[in-house]
Amino acid sequence: MTHSFRDLLSLEPLSADELTFLLDQSKLFQEIQRHPLKKLATLRGKTVALAFFETSTRTRISFGTAAARLGADIMNLQAEASSLKKGETLLDTAFNLNAMKPDCLVMRHAASGAPHYVARHLDIPVVNAGDGIHEHPSQGLLDALTIRDRKGTLSHLNVTILGDILHSRVARSDIHLLGKFGCRITLCGPAMWVPRDLEKIAPGTPIRCVYRIEEALEGADVIMMLRVQTERLNEPALSPNDYILGYQLNAGRLRRARPDAIVLHPGPMNRGIEITPDVADGPQSCVLEQVTNGVAVRMAILYLLVTGATESDTHPALEVKPKESANASD
Amino acid sequence: MTHSFRDLLSLEPLSADELTFLLDQSKLFQEIQRHPLKKLATLRGKTVALAFFETSTRTRISFGTAAARLGADIMNLQAEASSLKKGETLLDTAFNLNAMKPDCLVMRHAASGAPHYVARHLDIPVVNAGDGIHEHPSQGLLDALTIRDRKGTLSHLNVTILGDILHSRVARSDIHLLGKFGCRITLCGPAMWVPRDLEKIAPGTPIRCVYRIEEALEGADVIMMLRVQTERLNEPALSPNDYILGYQLNAGRLRRARPDAIVLHPGPMNRGIEITPDVADGPQSCVLEQVTNGVAVRMAILYLLVTGATESDTHPALEVKPKESANASD
Amino acid sequence: MTHSFRDLLSLEPLSADELTFLLDQSKLFQEIQRHPLKKLATLRGKTVALAFFETSTRTRISFGTAAARLGADIMNLQAEASSLKKGETLLDTAFNLNAMKPDCLVMRHAASGAPHYVARHLDIPVVNAGDGIHEHPSQGLLDALTIRDRKGTLSHLNVTILGDILHSRVARSDIHLLGKFGCRITLCGPAMWVPRDLEKIAPGTPIRCVYRIEEALEGADVIMMLRVQTERLNEPALSPNDYILGYQLNAGRLRRARPDAIVLHPGPMNRGIEITPDVADGPQSCVLEQVTNGVAVRMAILYLLVTGATESDTHPALEVKPKESANASD
Repeated sequence: MTHSFRDLLSLEPLSADELTFLLDQSKLFQEIQRHPLKKLATLRGKTVALAFFETSTRTRISFGTAAARLGADIMNLQAEASSLKKGETLLDTAFNLNAMKPDCLVMRHAASGAPHYVARHLDIPVVNAGDGIHEHPSQGLLDALTIRDRKGTLSHLNVTILGDILHSRVARSDIHLLGKFGCRITLCGPAMWVPRDLEKIAPGTPIRCVYRIEEALEGADVIMMLRVQTERLNEPALSPNDYILGYQLNAGRLRRARPDAIVLHPGPMNRGIEITPDVADGPQSCVLEQVTNGVAVRMAILYLLVTGATESDTHPALEVKPKESANASD
Repeated sequence: MTHSFRDLLSLEPLSADELTFLLDQSKLFQEIQRHPLKKLATLRGKTVALAFFETSTRTRISFGTAAARLGADIMNLQAEASSLKKGETLLDTAFNLNAMKPDCLVMRHAASGAPHYVARHLDIPVVNAGDGIHEHPSQGLLDALTIRDRKGTLSHLNVTILGDILHSRVARSDIHLLGKFGCRITLCGPAMWVPRDLEKIAPGTPIRCVYRIEEALEGADVIMMLRVQTERLNEPALSPNDYILGYQLNAGRLRRARPDAIVLHPGPMNRGIEITPDVADGPQSCVLEQVTNGVAVRMAILYLLVTGATESDTHPALEVKPKESANASD
Repeated sequence: MTHSFRDLLSLEPLSADELTFLLDQSKLFQEIQRHPLKKLATLRGKTVALAFFETSTRTRISFGTAAARLGADIMNLQAEASSLKKGETLLDTAFNLNAMKPDCLVMRHAASGAPHYVARHLDIPVVNAGDGIHEHPSQGLLDALTIRDRKGTLSHLNVTILGDILHSRVARSDIHLLGKFGCRITLCGPAMWVPRDLEKIAPGTPIRCVYRIEEALEGADVIMMLRVQTERLNEPALSPNDYILGYQLNAGRLRRARPDAIVLHPGPMNRGIEITPDVADGPQSCVLEQVTNGVAVRMAILYLLVTGATESDTHPALEVKPKESANASD
């Protein structure tokens, strides 16, 4: 199996085989996170540009750590300080970064489709690190890797996604990926955040919208929480208390799901709003595994896109530099 | 030819021979931008301090990339978060950075002459990355490298500089450099931005101020655009429309120049204000070559100042590490 | 002598032997600051997370430089852009960073005790880079290293600490450290900043509060200045002029101390407020040695905590990579 993509912009167009290939590659890099020395020389001499036009902490650090562990250098563009304030177009900013000859552009932007637009004009791979309310493919992959590790499979699971689905790029990437593996998706949240037409966003995937959390959790194998933007909870229609009463995941409600159900959250969590601390910290929670897997998935993405490697190539995990030679020659 | 400077503060005092030496060195590093692995070990174990007391994106990333490609580590001081807010003097901030033993200080400051002042007190090389309205020597060099590549020479060209000359450190560095090679300089822009006494800023260099763009472009070999600070375009005397009507470079006006004339812009561009998209993206435009050359020029500057290398030394381009040995030993 | 700490949170609980061990280790890294190539491979493949929840320039750059000179990679979290703004708890932020598998967490926080709280929940070493008004242990160590170098000993010195003792974590770390070596401490400053009960903060250490600077300086071997927060000098009770008249260290007052007394300041200095320029730049001033020693002390801290090395291990200073092999194999 070789991959057929130059960029990683969306999970929607990828086949189950391609997604499996990405997840299998990520497994190799997962090993490296447990190694005392996590640094490879795979991308030494390469440069990864991180262009975050939206504030981000964890995703930027995760991609940066992934790049550093592959031995790459980083060009760091943050919107706050960027030329965009000076009236430059997005494409000119991208062209300028590209003219400094990075080998890959990782990009986050508030506008859905912005990375796709940039990718059409650049000759280097572009990774979407979150675009508006469209997709967040590396998050979808790390969610899938976490689920596959815990459940042994991605096939035919009952997955419940809870919260503000409408504005969530994480939910979209998750739905597109899990649908490819025959999962049944239940979306649950306040009606204004879970409009009925979301049932049609991934044709061929069984999706239902449910407005009572107890019903949504019934029989779930996987519960995917979304972060609630608390600033959206001051409308007359929906106070924080309304949300807690209606949609908070607590221990009692969690018992509606299968006994071996797992709970994911992309972070940062609002403890006491969308999730209670006992659930967030309980044995069914995978939130920290998700973060660790995030670095592995991003190493795999950068490795594959920058080198164009396919499965027949030497596995990078074999190139881990032992400490002795590190001290001796470097 | 060896160079006789310890710092790079201004192009004004440098001779044509010294400038040629810097440009020739930059050629070596230009090669490296095309190499699949762009990392040298030349400055490994060295530290380059970047102290930007004025917001910058592209120049900071360009110097940072240059340092990383030479193998150096970076100390990154940005004014926003700096001790200057706490009342420390500029010199104390510089002394403090220096006490952490970097091997070079790259500095941008809103006050003209600030890097010169700091350089007189430090024992490490100082590179001026833009000081007030005085000079921006690495920009001048990258402009010259771009022109020499495209025109085959720097000698005796007709160069037209368009825009807000008065406030432009880029224009000053360009004028000082190009004057050394016998270029004839035409300055053009609104009268308040192109005061007649600019004709005397580089004694010995033929400079004329012209207020009609058509006349200024007549016979030009090189057209150097400057960025218009759009916030300066809300005076009663000069609206954006006035500027566009009077000084925008568009395809029709460009035809006044020589058929093989080239167009440079230091970026970020205000498309639709000082330049039209067809010109910015047309075959005569060199704006992205400028950006690529910027990394090469800055690698040359850091290499020469940190190592004190002269022409008789081994060319660093020969030290490019091949991929195989990178994987094997590192 | 081996060390018995996993974290470096406070100097208060450390014994004179443990402190001496830390200072002796720092000596090795002090050598490296004078070496033309300051880069070791000791922590290559390791990652140091810098989590600064309070603005910092010099301490962050100092730790970052220390990490880079040990060959480590850096994860850089700055509060401005952090998830804390999104309502995440401090512990969740720390768990998240930790899930990306750094080998050490260096942390600054406005709340006294915050690093201790985090350290109790993490399985990696935590270094306190300043917590509220509690401690700043690496500053205490660099102060001690500077004093020991200049005076030949730390034992039984007369140490006068001048300024806003009440709000100073630097003063607390200095007092705890110096007290272990039998120093006699004099605290001096405006009464509201030097409350009498400070005499009891380090039981067993002779501490006295004095409100006349001339008396406080009499016979001093070491004068430790503190930075005055000038925003605290606009109360009716204490204007900048009051402070200058009462507590500024000037040349005349300095003569009250021993002739070989030394002056320290953690920076950034307010020249003309707490210290006059002639004293700040005079032969008795050690302020820049402090900064250089800061990198050495932080290299020692990171080295010891990340590797768990003890005195019987090979000294890292022996691993300095010579330039030739750097060029040849890297």
